[in-house]
Amino acid sequence: MNNIKPFQEAILSSLADLTYPQQPNELYEPIRYILNLGGKRLRPVLTLLAADAYGNWKQAIPQALSVEIFHNFTLVHDDIMDDAPLRRGKETVHEKWDVNRAILSGDAMLIQAYMQLVKCDQQHIAALMNAFNKVALEVCEGQQFDVNFEESTAISQDQYIEMIRLKTSVLLGAALQFGAIVSSAPEQDQQHLYDFGVKLGIAFQIKDDWLDVYGDPEKFGKQVGGDILANKKTLLMIHALETAHGDQQLELNKWLDTSDQPQQKVKEVTELFTHLGAGEKAKEVMDRYYSDSLESLAKCSMMPSDKRANFETFANWLMERDH
Amino acid sequence: MNNIKPFQEAILSSLADLTYPQQPNELYEPIRYILNLGGKRLRPVLTLLAADAYGNWKQAIPQALSVEIFHNFTLVHDDIMDDAPLRRGKETVHEKWDVNRAILSGDAMLIQAYMQLVKCDQQHIAALMNAFNKVALEVCEGQQFDVNFEESTAISQDQYIEMIRLKTSVLLGAALQFGAIVSSAPEQDQQHLYDFGVKLGIAFQIKDDWLDVYGDPEKFGKQVGGDILANKKTLLMIHALETAHGDQQLELNKWLDTSDQPQQKVKEVTELFTHLGAGEKAKEVMDRYYSDSLESLAKCSMMPSDKRANFETFANWLMERDH
Repeated sequence: MNNIKPFQEAILSSLADLTYPQQPNELYEPIRYILNLGGKRLRPVLTLLAADAYGNWKQAIPQALSVEIFHNFTLVHDDIMDDAPLRRGKETVHEKWDVNRAILSGDAMLIQAYMQLVKCDQQHIAALMNAFNKVALEVCEGQQFDVNFEESTAISQDQYIEMIRLKTSVLLGAALQFGAIVSSAPEQDQQHLYDFGVKLGIAFQIKDDWLDVYGDPEKFGKQVGGDILANKKTLLMIHALETAHGDQQLELNKWLDTSDQPQQKVKEVTELFTHLGAGEKAKEVMDRYYSDSLESLAKCSMMPSDKRANFETFANWLMERDH
Repeated sequence: MNNIKPFQEAILSSLADLTYPQQPNELYEPIRYILNLGGKRLRPVLTLLAADAYGNWKQAIPQALSVEIFHNFTLVHDDIMDDAPLRRGKETVHEKWDVNRAILSGDAMLIQAYMQLVKCDQQHIAALMNAFNKVALEVCEGQQFDVNFEESTAISQDQYIEMIRLKTSVLLGAALQFGAIVSSAPEQDQQHLYDFGVKLGIAFQIKDDWLDVYGDPEKFGKQVGGDILANKKTLLMIHALETAHGDQQLELNKWLDTSDQPQQKVKEVTELFTHLGAGEKAKEVMDRYYSDSLESLAKCSMMPSDKRANFETFANWLMERDH
């Protein structure tokens, strides 16, 4: 992905250039920490790609930072709720410090995301605020549905997709929309680009779920089988629960009821998934969202074709990744 | 305070008119709950008073709601951090539900505060956003200083006043500023009105600290002596720690080291405060901020004098209150 290199570099150097008040250090230290943990910076790259498609991408750097800060704010608060010890292989904020620090520095990050968002021509502020407020609230709703689903056994595929749409995908759509707004893209193109991002985001999350089961342990950053161990109702699990009968159903339920023998659990549930065609089913749904996303992209009629190729390369890279 | 009645009523009915999505109910139920717990609604009243001083107050109702929703967001998250069981005599959000619900619904409230804030003429959005972002981050800083001070013994009067300025007072100043912005008040008046609010807010908080010790238990809403039991470094405690010597110092430290005999602790520490003139000292500082606030108010040269009288009545009422 050489064509996003300059964008990634601009984001990294802008993140490094962010300054924080000296005091209270207890508030700002966790923010510096989480923003420097790394990651692919996919969301801010999307903002810059969109701005580049209709104008000068450099003017959208604050909005790209806004997306990245917002995304990291959600990670800090979600990690508290999920009681997660690690994030990108390092201690989570509430583990490294404590829950109170994670709550408060997360709050400050949400405010800082808004600070970056409105660094633009006055004419764009209202549109940016409307788009940001909408997506921010949707991400909260998605997180709440995710929490609800943990306690629920009967989740349908539609409910799952609506949950990941809110929790993950709309932010990819909004990231693109912000860049398009700043570059004064026509409103129709803004909408198609948003749709492209949302559909790509759904495909991206399903790919993540698939990699969690079938990924190469050497390349996949996280523990393969992590979702199985956590009894997560991913698309694969939903398909398995819907299609397992008889002995397979008994076995699946047995594994869902226990956290003993974790290695065996991952192995056996993966085999069940394979027998039931859960991986294939997930790939099929993923491919449909991926091709739908490209259809939305193609509708951006005012976008130069060389710019469209950048998005296609990006989307293809996201789908072909093995980690 | 008859002259704020119409403002209070407008806020209550606007709060009642707020609608929330049906789902996820787990996210929105705590928001409805905390926003309907009551309270004096002082901050949104200030927004409407300021808007009324320079124009039509009704156009500032969304900004008044923004201030009230923001204030309640801080209460929800602060109550988690302070492990507080009660708020306005009712269960706090994290007690009634759980910490995760309180974190997430608090986050959603912060976003909703921004949603209300930008419901205005486009021309005012940038100024409102700058003022809101500044105050919101300052309130986080104030909360962090407050947490820090709990673990520190040597807090000076200046540090304490800076902490309450950030945690409490700047929001009163900003509430006024929002109303002034929406009514297109001259910038100089906006600044003086902001200063009036900040200084009045400091006096207001010191009054709260004083009432906590010397308030009439029949009228004071909270438990008299609550700050003493929590070893809070209020202005009274700071003065006592700075001036106590010999036996008095030993006794004060003895009570700071124990949570036994709570009734006796409140009684004895209150007596120490009285002997050391801590209550008088606090009143003196409070009176100075109060009179400084009125001086700032008097500098609002474009404000009609009958409108100024409304603020004076309000400020006087805040200072004379016994609860």
